[in-house]
Amino acid sequence: MSKDSVKLLNFWPSVFGLRVHYALDLKGVSYDYQEESLPNKSKELLEANPIYTKIPVLIHNGKPICESLVIVDYIDSVWPGSHKLLPEDPYEKAVARFWADFGDKKLYDAGSRLIRAMGEEHKKAGKDFKWALMKIDEALGTIAPGKPFFGGDAMNFADVALAPFICCFKSYQKVGGFVLPGPEEWPNLYKWVDAVNSVDVIKISTPSDDKVAEFLERYRKHATRAA
Amino acid sequence: MSKDSVKLLNFWPSVFGLRVHYALDLKGVSYDYQEESLPNKSKELLEANPIYTKIPVLIHNGKPICESLVIVDYIDSVWPGSHKLLPEDPYEKAVARFWADFGDKKLYDAGSRLIRAMGEEHKKAGKDFKWALMKIDEALGTIAPGKPFFGGDAMNFADVALAPFICCFKSYQKVGGFVLPGPEEWPNLYKWVDAVNSVDVIKISTPSDDKVAEFLERYRKHATRAA
Repeated sequence: MSKDSVKLLNFWPSVFGLRVHYALDLKGVSYDYQEESLPNKSKELLEANPIYTKIPVLIHNGKPICESLVIVDYIDSVWPGSHKLLPEDPYEKAVARFWADFGDKKLYDAGSRLIRAMGEEHKKAGKDFKWALMKIDEALGTIAPGKPFFGGDAMNFADVALAPFICCFKSYQKVGGFVLPGPEEWPNLYKWVDAVNSVDVIKISTPSDDKVAEFLERYRKHATRAA
Repeated sequence: MSKDSVKLLNFWPSVFGLRVHYALDLKGVSYDYQEESLPNKSKELLEANPIYTKIPVLIHNGKPICESLVIVDYIDSVWPGSHKLLPEDPYEKAVARFWADFGDKKLYDAGSRLIRAMGEEHKKAGKDFKWALMKIDEALGTIAPGKPFFGGDAMNFADVALAPFICCFKSYQKVGGFVLPGPEEWPNLYKWVDAVNSVDVIKISTPSDDKVAEFLERYRKHATRAA
């Protein structure tokens, strides 16, 4: 493993980039990190991801891998190690993939609209965001009853895919003008948030709520001014 | 395998449903088929996919699996058989996943806007659709030079994910008011289309161009009237 060259091209507030961080860190893989400036992307990024020209990109021994869930899947194949992210059982694996994908299709989508939109669309985004979290609470109760993670006692593919959104909760509530239901209503979700936040490598990789909030507020000002 | 109960809930023109058809058929898996009426979905569909209430759903021994790429992945795990869809090599697997996902993010998205949108948005959709096909032509030339499929000599995960769009090409051109560049400009794409169309099980599962065109035209009339 020591001869491997591993490099992550990223932009720190990206929930997609955090997935890759988490996966590498949970596996204990050493890597170089390159922070990208979105208005001025590096030649390396543009060449490594010509289709989307987006972070995150993992470059492993010169080969670029793009799209966060594809990267996490790749990491799990190359470094299975002691912490396997994708379950061996085909049905459990499908369930983990389904909820990881739910993060993109519902949670990211609603969060993104919350930050960009105004008026009715903004209100709708808040509702959609809360709905998505409610579904995650329900799913945790069904898939891993009594356990903290989608993966049971340890984070799996779904946990890694969904966990990055946690550091946006504070800003989403502020921007959306709502307060999320508490642990009495969403016990599984809050137990999961606590469990994720107490994993050492997650603590190290995750930017603070305040830093994310400040970034997202600046982003919202810019996006709504441009609209 | 004979004791397995396998059922596909589907709606025949769905490109997502076709992926599941193709995967099951390439593996030689026997299954029951249930056609869904979208305005009047079955209780079984609503219960099997409460998050999206959408086809396709595969129900295997009573357990529902949702989202087409998750289903194809599941099929490949449960019935690896002689025709494995996902490559063993992690990098090749990541490449196959990337292009399968490209089908959702770019090809389906542009095709869908072509059918629904009007005016400038419609024009933009046509451009995006052609761009996506050009990228597929380029990718085929890079990933599998001289070979017909993304998977080389046989269809893999990316081929199964992208192939269903072929039966929409005719309608997309008609609706978009453009003619796609020919084989001299996109040699890899046309070679791939021919190769896909000559796979026996694909021929059987795929609805005819005319049937798809008729459906999409009715759909466009409905969508643009409602807009």
